[in-house]
Amino acid sequence: MIRVGIVGGTGYTGVELLRMLVLHSGVEIGVVTSRSDAGNRVDALYPSLRGMCDVVFSMPEIESLAECEVVFFATPNGTAMLMAEELLKRNVKVIDLSADFRIKNHKEWSEWYGMDHACPELIGEAVYGLPEVNREAIKATNLLACPGCYPTAVQLGFLPLIENKLIDFSHLIADVKSGVSGAGRKAQVSALMSETGESFKAYAVAGHRHLPEITQGLEIVAKKTIGLTFVPHLTPMIRGIHATLYGQFSGDIDCVHTLFEQRYKNELFVDVLPKGEHPDTRNVRGSNKCQIAVHQPQGGNTLVILSVIDNLVKGAAGQAIQNMNIMYGLDEKLGLTTVALYP
Amino acid sequence: MIRVGIVGGTGYTGVELLRMLVLHSGVEIGVVTSRSDAGNRVDALYPSLRGMCDVVFSMPEIESLAECEVVFFATPNGTAMLMAEELLKRNVKVIDLSADFRIKNHKEWSEWYGMDHACPELIGEAVYGLPEVNREAIKATNLLACPGCYPTAVQLGFLPLIENKLIDFSHLIADVKSGVSGAGRKAQVSALMSETGESFKAYAVAGHRHLPEITQGLEIVAKKTIGLTFVPHLTPMIRGIHATLYGQFSGDIDCVHTLFEQRYKNELFVDVLPKGEHPDTRNVRGSNKCQIAVHQPQGGNTLVILSVIDNLVKGAAGQAIQNMNIMYGLDEKLGLTTVALYP
Amino acid sequence: MIRVGIVGGTGYTGVELLRMLVLHSGVEIGVVTSRSDAGNRVDALYPSLRGMCDVVFSMPEIESLAECEVVFFATPNGTAMLMAEELLKRNVKVIDLSADFRIKNHKEWSEWYGMDHACPELIGEAVYGLPEVNREAIKATNLLACPGCYPTAVQLGFLPLIENKLIDFSHLIADVKSGVSGAGRKAQVSALMSETGESFKAYAVAGHRHLPEITQGLEIVAKKTIGLTFVPHLTPMIRGIHATLYGQFSGDIDCVHTLFEQRYKNELFVDVLPKGEHPDTRNVRGSNKCQIAVHQPQGGNTLVILSVIDNLVKGAAGQAIQNMNIMYGLDEKLGLTTVALYP
Amino acid sequence: MIRVGIVGGTGYTGVELLRMLVLHSGVEIGVVTSRSDAGNRVDALYPSLRGMCDVVFSMPEIESLAECEVVFFATPNGTAMLMAEELLKRNVKVIDLSADFRIKNHKEWSEWYGMDHACPELIGEAVYGLPEVNREAIKATNLLACPGCYPTAVQLGFLPLIENKLIDFSHLIADVKSGVSGAGRKAQVSALMSETGESFKAYAVAGHRHLPEITQGLEIVAKKTIGLTFVPHLTPMIRGIHATLYGQFSGDIDCVHTLFEQRYKNELFVDVLPKGEHPDTRNVRGSNKCQIAVHQPQGGNTLVILSVIDNLVKGAAGQAIQNMNIMYGLDEKLGLTTVALYP
Repeated sequence: MIRVGIVGGTGYTGVELLRMLVLHSGVEIGVVTSRSDAGNRVDALYPSLRGMCDVVFSMPEIESLAECEVVFFATPNGTAMLMAEELLKRNVKVIDLSADFRIKNHKEWSEWYGMDHACPELIGEAVYGLPEVNREAIKATNLLACPGCYPTAVQLGFLPLIENKLIDFSHLIADVKSGVSGAGRKAQVSALMSETGESFKAYAVAGHRHLPEITQGLEIVAKKTIGLTFVPHLTPMIRGIHATLYGQFSGDIDCVHTLFEQRYKNELFVDVLPKGEHPDTRNVRGSNKCQIAVHQPQGGNTLVILSVIDNLVKGAAGQAIQNMNIMYGLDEKLGLTTVALYP
Repeated sequence: MIRVGIVGGTGYTGVELLRMLVLHSGVEIGVVTSRSDAGNRVDALYPSLRGMCDVVFSMPEIESLAECEVVFFATPNGTAMLMAEELLKRNVKVIDLSADFRIKNHKEWSEWYGMDHACPELIGEAVYGLPEVNREAIKATNLLACPGCYPTAVQLGFLPLIENKLIDFSHLIADVKSGVSGAGRKAQVSALMSETGESFKAYAVAGHRHLPEITQGLEIVAKKTIGLTFVPHLTPMIRGIHATLYGQFSGDIDCVHTLFEQRYKNELFVDVLPKGEHPDTRNVRGSNKCQIAVHQPQGGNTLVILSVIDNLVKGAAGQAIQNMNIMYGLDEKLGLTTVALYP
Repeated sequence: MIRVGIVGGTGYTGVELLRMLVLHSGVEIGVVTSRSDAGNRVDALYPSLRGMCDVVFSMPEIESLAECEVVFFATPNGTAMLMAEELLKRNVKVIDLSADFRIKNHKEWSEWYGMDHACPELIGEAVYGLPEVNREAIKATNLLACPGCYPTAVQLGFLPLIENKLIDFSHLIADVKSGVSGAGRKAQVSALMSETGESFKAYAVAGHRHLPEITQGLEIVAKKTIGLTFVPHLTPMIRGIHATLYGQFSGDIDCVHTLFEQRYKNELFVDVLPKGEHPDTRNVRGSNKCQIAVHQPQGGNTLVILSVIDNLVKGAAGQAIQNMNIMYGLDEKLGLTTVALYP
Repeated sequence: MIRVGIVGGTGYTGVELLRMLVLHSGVEIGVVTSRSDAGNRVDALYPSLRGMCDVVFSMPEIESLAECEVVFFATPNGTAMLMAEELLKRNVKVIDLSADFRIKNHKEWSEWYGMDHACPELIGEAVYGLPEVNREAIKATNLLACPGCYPTAVQLGFLPLIENKLIDFSHLIADVKSGVSGAGRKAQVSALMSETGESFKAYAVAGHRHLPEITQGLEIVAKKTIGLTFVPHLTPMIRGIHATLYGQFSGDIDCVHTLFEQRYKNELFVDVLPKGEHPDTRNVRGSNKCQIAVHQPQGGNTLVILSVIDNLVKGAAGQAIQNMNIMYGLDEKLGLTTVALYP
């Protein structure tokens, strides 16, 4: 049994890790930290875990975390970078669900995240945990940077096209819609039900932090500069991301569909839908799946890719566990074989 | 492996059975019937099941169903009673999620359900599948009548009080709120999102079909007539039932709380919350749990019991599987150890 | 034109006052205060008001407020009691939407609201603004205490029965469900969409601040002690309150229905539905109406009254404007003849 | 007082017409037809109208409709074209909210709508009722084709750019999200709350009926062929459309913003937001406004226009009334000066 620690257990990605890890046959939950709830039982805050988890929240301390084999950071940006180095020194693997180790250029990171990076020298060691791209590197690393939710949905949708140079790299558009759990479990007026229910809006059109992450990921594959317009939106539901991706191409949709099927045929968690289908976020709710469809409206030169995930699962906690399974040589789907909650 | 059949696989209780049974280690799905979708793959209608279920919908026919060991009826009322006798003759166990075998008095059944009963002679054999009351009888039966969703939440909340004669039997009130999936997956204006979203209403105050079922269940335990006012409401969410139960008593809330804890301490799926807590339907969403709290506002003589379930799980498909596990002597929680989907 | 001021213009009752007052032909908006947004245009915070309102938020100061003829307090509890006396001295009418002047016994108020009352001597002057009970007194007062949302729905439902002594005063039950806008526009985890969406719960069963207000209102009419159990619930929608009220009686539902029709036949904003109907909160959404239906399930001795309002309109801002109209001798429905937003 | 008739009063656009027309000072409701509800009071079906409307639904008959001065068709496609000619002959103005008279090429109409056009000779007479483009023609017509909801939001967003040739006409993208009321008030599984709540999807990517309408509208202005990719989505809310529009350009966002402000400065119902803002559908809910913002992410060559309307108001009934006001020379905003229902 792998002893795991979770730093930041009171946010949505923290409790989502717990939801899946308490049923994971290969791990035991050693430590769950929370500054605000230290001393309280985890299942007092989250009654959904009653009978499943006897752990008490503790303060985040290196000593207790170092007794774990792997530590997940489900923290706001800026926390993992303060503790990762010490944990790695003590042979603890680190899986960071925040953005601290995702961007290779630490100056770019600082510009987007508004703080200096505390350990830029570690960034190079970190592996970007998108298994569909980096599986071999993930196996070998001790420091994993788990992708953001938008970047996961967008990259999985564009990847086969970029890899095969099938679209114009200079005019990619990602129109992406997220449920409100992406805003996290923190007190803020803008995420109140009275503010977000029954309404729809775009936000951060001028520039969202996930833009450099997506661009970096696609450019590594493209081996050249790409031009991406990324517009995130908030949709009145709790879980789910729907990416609608547009690219210019001249080709045949059947070939594109076959290409997607080939690209992902061995991927457990990427599911290419039959031709003509439209993925629906509910069909991946609570599951680690990404469902994708490709369309060529009116047979024109614009390709439309639809890609859906659950932002808290394949977009966060589920992908983190998938990465852990890979890092430990476990069956990649261990603890992740749930069926989406429909309806 | 137990070979199971599902009659009526295109409704919400049908797909919910599939969601849980595809991961149940003791069964294989043999037959899933649907008149409207016969010939189509199950996962074409329900993309959430892609990769989990290779079954094709078939027409409901005794021959193919008789090759199963147990058949679940996830059908509208009036279907199971037409097929149960023949299946039982062929040594197939029947678990009926509809109301056909719940009411012992077939004339009363006919009045509430608006049709004659097709096999009243079988009603006596049927066991009412509330494991917390009838576990021993369930073990021995081949014909199981799975309780309704409202009756499950209400009975589990009132039971310890009725058994111990702690409340006035003549003035029970059950004010119960249900998510809209209780209305089923059928085309009807009244269940459109535009009709049910962002709104709340009571319905069927004059009399709801679940009233005689609840009354029967409580009277068997009370061994006398009870007076129950049952008001169902529709609340704008998909899953969940919240029963707020009122009874007159003169006593001490601490004793009542202890009584509930004692009554349910060995029940895997009934969870009595700590004193002062309020259950929330989200904490049982997708799980087979019933969470209960007891309150005595202002120390007065009205007892308030709060009881929540997921109407599609403990209120339907999950409880049906729990019953199947009991009927086959399996671990009662097999296939049911999920954690509620929060948030 | 009556010059009005609004203290606390950034909360939901404040903006709701603005929504209706900008179209009210008898008033002009003079001052809207907000400590947090002073200096900003009102329509910058609330783009729904663009083109309708040129006012800039200002700091709450007696001098500018005193230039208004009437000041609405749409503030948290404890603010109006600090400013009312000075405004009244300067011949400004005060309409308080908070709870400061609702409870006649200031010690009881202090116990429920957790603070000392700043001007207990004014409480006696205040008129409780339920027009259906106190219209004459409202005409004559300069200090109006606008009822709470729950108390409005519950009292309007029970009033005809209490007035006519048709139910057992000792065992009243009010099971009431509210949309989440009742929690206000303030940063708090418990009101996030991820916390309140797709879920239903009771809260404050041990005792809610609106209990003494309801009890006081009903006891004044009953002229004796009443026994009320009040259980508030949170339902996943933004606007609306649905009160399901229970009383013991021995009588005839037709007489009760006629009684309700008679009682409210001259009331513009209380609408008794035809026999057998169930009110739906959506049918009063955005309007100042209360819709009521009465039922006697199975002809038994429990009467069920269903009463719905929009918590922000008849339960707050609309009722406040109705009271203003009465205080100024205007047509009572001025500015309030909207039709509910359905669907 | 203009006597108006409404054919198809039981759908969402029908009841939305009623919501606004009962408060319109220039009209009286003469006839409201419904085949299914003929003989019943309108306010029995729609309790939100109690006290506001004494009309009884009648069968749709030319004789009674001909006694009106203007008849609104709030019917499914294919109905207005059967009755318009006869009504026009009798000097009744016709305002069609369906698609029957929107497409100038009747063969193209037949292909998209799957039926022959019953009176192609009338199409030429019909004026497309987008006041911001066709106000003068609207004043003069007796047959008005009211625009679809998607086409309204998309055209108002693209118009200033097309008129000024500021974007590449060959690569326009309209990624548009609609609330579920757009699916109408008819019994269908796909619009159930259990199907559409808490989920997000694209649909009809291969081709939606509003595509030729949008293209026609833009090409008339562009005076050349345009290339448009239109992807509609369903978002889990009742009312509202959010269009996110993309165009390639090389220019300056400040000029574009000024251009939009100039273009719409005299338009009562198109509101260009300040620079940097993001419109939110809630801010136009229940109102006839279109709110628009323009963005140039990262100063690149892709322009992003955000355009929101209430699909039932500016996207249907409100625009129809705006057109009626213009046709009769009334104040264009009569009956339409509501404030959006926020929250």
